[in-house]
Amino acid sequence: MLRGLTQAGIGMESDERLIESAAEYGFQAVDVDALSLVERLGLDQARELLQKHGIVIGSIGLPVEWRTTDEAFLQGLEKLAKSAAAASALGCTSCCTYILPSTDMKPAHFMTVATKRLRICAQILGAYGIRLGLEFVGPHHLRTQWKHPFIWTLDETLDWIDAIGESNVGLLFDAYHWYTNELTVADIERLRPEQIVHAHINDAPDLPVEDVLDNGRLYPGEGVIDLAGFLRALHAIGYKGVVAQEILTASRSAESPESLLQRSQKGFNKVYTAAGL
Amino acid sequence: MLRGLTQAGIGMESDERLIESAAEYGFQAVDVDALSLVERLGLDQARELLQKHGIVIGSIGLPVEWRTTDEAFLQGLEKLAKSAAAASALGCTSCCTYILPSTDMKPAHFMTVATKRLRICAQILGAYGIRLGLEFVGPHHLRTQWKHPFIWTLDETLDWIDAIGESNVGLLFDAYHWYTNELTVADIERLRPEQIVHAHINDAPDLPVEDVLDNGRLYPGEGVIDLAGFLRALHAIGYKGVVAQEILTASRSAESPESLLQRSQKGFNKVYTAAGL
Amino acid sequence: MLRGLTQAGIGMESDERLIESAAEYGFQAVDVDALSLVERLGLDQARELLQKHGIVIGSIGLPVEWRTTDEAFLQGLEKLAKSAAAASALGCTSCCTYILPSTDMKPAHFMTVATKRLRICAQILGAYGIRLGLEFVGPHHLRTQWKHPFIWTLDETLDWIDAIGESNVGLLFDAYHWYTNELTVADIERLRPEQIVHAHINDAPDLPVEDVLDNGRLYPGEGVIDLAGFLRALHAIGYKGVVAQEILTASRSAESPESLLQRSQKGFNKVYTAAGL
Amino acid sequence: MLRGLTQAGIGMESDERLIESAAEYGFQAVDVDALSLVERLGLDQARELLQKHGIVIGSIGLPVEWRTTDEAFLQGLEKLAKSAAAASALGCTSCCTYILPSTDMKPAHFMTVATKRLRICAQILGAYGIRLGLEFVGPHHLRTQWKHPFIWTLDETLDWIDAIGESNVGLLFDAYHWYTNELTVADIERLRPEQIVHAHINDAPDLPVEDVLDNGRLYPGEGVIDLAGFLRALHAIGYKGVVAQEILTASRSAESPESLLQRSQKGFNKVYTAAGL
Repeated sequence: MLRGLTQAGIGMESDERLIESAAEYGFQAVDVDALSLVERLGLDQARELLQKHGIVIGSIGLPVEWRTTDEAFLQGLEKLAKSAAAASALGCTSCCTYILPSTDMKPAHFMTVATKRLRICAQILGAYGIRLGLEFVGPHHLRTQWKHPFIWTLDETLDWIDAIGESNVGLLFDAYHWYTNELTVADIERLRPEQIVHAHINDAPDLPVEDVLDNGRLYPGEGVIDLAGFLRALHAIGYKGVVAQEILTASRSAESPESLLQRSQKGFNKVYTAAGL
Repeated sequence: MLRGLTQAGIGMESDERLIESAAEYGFQAVDVDALSLVERLGLDQARELLQKHGIVIGSIGLPVEWRTTDEAFLQGLEKLAKSAAAASALGCTSCCTYILPSTDMKPAHFMTVATKRLRICAQILGAYGIRLGLEFVGPHHLRTQWKHPFIWTLDETLDWIDAIGESNVGLLFDAYHWYTNELTVADIERLRPEQIVHAHINDAPDLPVEDVLDNGRLYPGEGVIDLAGFLRALHAIGYKGVVAQEILTASRSAESPESLLQRSQKGFNKVYTAAGL
Repeated sequence: MLRGLTQAGIGMESDERLIESAAEYGFQAVDVDALSLVERLGLDQARELLQKHGIVIGSIGLPVEWRTTDEAFLQGLEKLAKSAAAASALGCTSCCTYILPSTDMKPAHFMTVATKRLRICAQILGAYGIRLGLEFVGPHHLRTQWKHPFIWTLDETLDWIDAIGESNVGLLFDAYHWYTNELTVADIERLRPEQIVHAHINDAPDLPVEDVLDNGRLYPGEGVIDLAGFLRALHAIGYKGVVAQEILTASRSAESPESLLQRSQKGFNKVYTAAGL
Repeated sequence: MLRGLTQAGIGMESDERLIESAAEYGFQAVDVDALSLVERLGLDQARELLQKHGIVIGSIGLPVEWRTTDEAFLQGLEKLAKSAAAASALGCTSCCTYILPSTDMKPAHFMTVATKRLRICAQILGAYGIRLGLEFVGPHHLRTQWKHPFIWTLDETLDWIDAIGESNVGLLFDAYHWYTNELTVADIERLRPEQIVHAHINDAPDLPVEDVLDNGRLYPGEGVIDLAGFLRALHAIGYKGVVAQEILTASRSAESPESLLQRSQKGFNKVYTAAGL
């Protein structure tokens, strides 16, 4: 499993700097927008930057708005192939999006629309050898934030992946959502590794689980999630992809990016060691 | 368009008798269980019975329980191919199921499961040249009968058909649900005929539309639905399939099947004449 | 059915001029590249040009190379959504491509690759409300032009459409390929109208059918194809789309575009009249 | 990886006896017809027989004829769900079929028909948690046995699996076809384990590879195939399924089943040891 970073929790001034720093602090992957990178640097130099620092792109975000109107969806769709081509050219094979656990739309109807939309996205991504990871989102407050329940559990997400019906769709498995869903190591162990497209790691404060906020995340090893168990289980089933830190917080940290990188490195070391990895 | 009957509202002692009587009273199609017919009579005699009376089978019911457990679904699935083969052998090209407008399950999750299940059913039916018709169900009381809203409108159902993604899936278009959804002739006119797999006709009492009960149906021409407009629009867009009467009532009628057949014939004549067909 | 033109057989200097002239000579549709038009004129002016002349775009060509390498395919795929968006914005709902009847690749393997590629194209087009028409190509000389037979018949193409498995895929039905496949009016009559996405019309010289060349086409009414029967059958099954003239010839005609337009108009009048339309 | 047996090369009088003997000779899996077993013994006793001997069912054969007529296909389809249900009830999650490398049909057309048919089979199997394994067949004489080439290579088969487009379809990887395709250990190493549904093992005589006959197979370790490399590579990529012996021969062996079992056991021990497993 590769140690990865996202900008969330680091706030580096540019993705180029994130790539350099990630390497410096012992990381092997970053989640950045491949297309922007290629557009800024050119393909050759983007490749060179990654290679020079021994960094791979863990995942790109899905650049298509599939949660609102047809117009917004179709507008995003126009650039998806281009984004996929850029990601693929940089060796990235994963693209992720998250699922909000409630919705103001009639949920069953929204599910039909979303299924159709994500199937098209998956087909396009698949043409470029890229998989689509769907992230179920666990925090309780989001389950009632909008009018109707949508989906937020592992099993619901697996069923959705089945309904989408494309073989390149799987999970973005985030430790925070594993925790807020009160899932166990055994729940990971019953997965096949190919069901996981990408993984996120972060920690949660010592609060009743139903009070844990989506943007109240801590750095790995600074909270109460059994991240050693999480990592051990992912490793045990044979997952070999990226485990990227994603620290969503209510406000930007006062610490410098360098200090946050150091803290992240320390956190990874702590939980990987605890996991015996 | 072929004039059709179902047992609902007639209550004939057997499907064989329904076939005979349908012809007698000017109908051209009946909705019966093709497989039972073949099992009772043998294929040749079942065919002969239909041909002798100039009756076609309008549609069979989907013999698979897709609304509850995996176990129930899989059990039904075992016989689907056989049912499809029987229907196909008798020249029937349509199989229908209805959609309850609310559910005790989390609706988005149920939608993923139902999508997957109906896709499998559609694939099997398609192998035998049979289309699957989904019936949206409009009466207001059913929309809140179970805990969460599911889907009940025309557009939601069309989106679901899209999400299922099989080209042999379309609508069972029922006049009662058209009425209780307060749809108009224009809503039919924007459909393409191939989107309609089967049609149902029946009438509604003169009540506020939100008080109309699913099992409070009247015979065509005895209520307030604009069935002339309904039929005219179906005809106008080029629908050439069956329009079958389906009268769901709270209790069985005291009238004899023969009397009900006469009443049905009269009703069809009335509304077809009004439609100028 | 709308009378349509393509540049093949007219050779007008620009698509803008083709649109103007088409109207002048009694046509209602042209097959042009919607995206180029939008890029040259802007969306509003492109729309206005079409509306002013009462012309619709019959079909765009599939801007994706699906017959050669993965690289070529993926490159084309990057622009497909954009092309589809432009076509859709101009009210066009059809996109077509032709099938070469033989191949130097192992044909079964090429079929797997082509199936996958066209499925992705169909999904993208479908998102924009556009259908994909596949044109089977009949001339005998092309069946052995490359090493192995691929497909060239109506039934093979229908089976391929089934294998692609997207509900927005159908036929581009060309009178020349109908003729060179020695198909009959009855072969059209067994189709459902929604199976036809687009139609082409042109005529063939009085030669043994196996000697008819793909680029030896004549203007409608100047050859031996039963175009009256062709049109009558399309009309009879309820086809309401475009019938566009496509005259492929070995060399460019010496006649002026205006003269060729006049000839085309005369040809259409002749065969439509013969068809009683 | 589990050591498995098929009847091919053993010729045991019944599948029940094969299950007992397999255990006796150190095997962990057998490929038998689950439905027949359940029909003969009843579900409970069939389960008990397997459990008592510590044997799992490696794979069932696809009980549907997908290579000839629609009639034959549809007839087989009627029993597929039942076969799948029986297999699933006995814990079997794999169903396999082989691909003949040439065909008298137009190969591209046959590919469309076969794609459609196998997609339906895969959908039904998938409902029961069963994967479909496609076996590419390498011996050279079969490539020209029928009129046109079909497919016989690993890459062609992977592309076909893509075209079928169901996530539960993968490879039956047979050492004989790996050898006759002159594939290498590296060709296995570039696979992901989930792409392999089932594996077969057997050996080939010391002949020029183009003269090796499909029914001229030897027991593992008695021929020239690098079975140590084959097993090592399967193990290295993380394949954890069954490796079942399948010895196709021109005539039935004169040896007793017990003697052949002993020989098979010896062969497995030899090649597993050579592989360091």
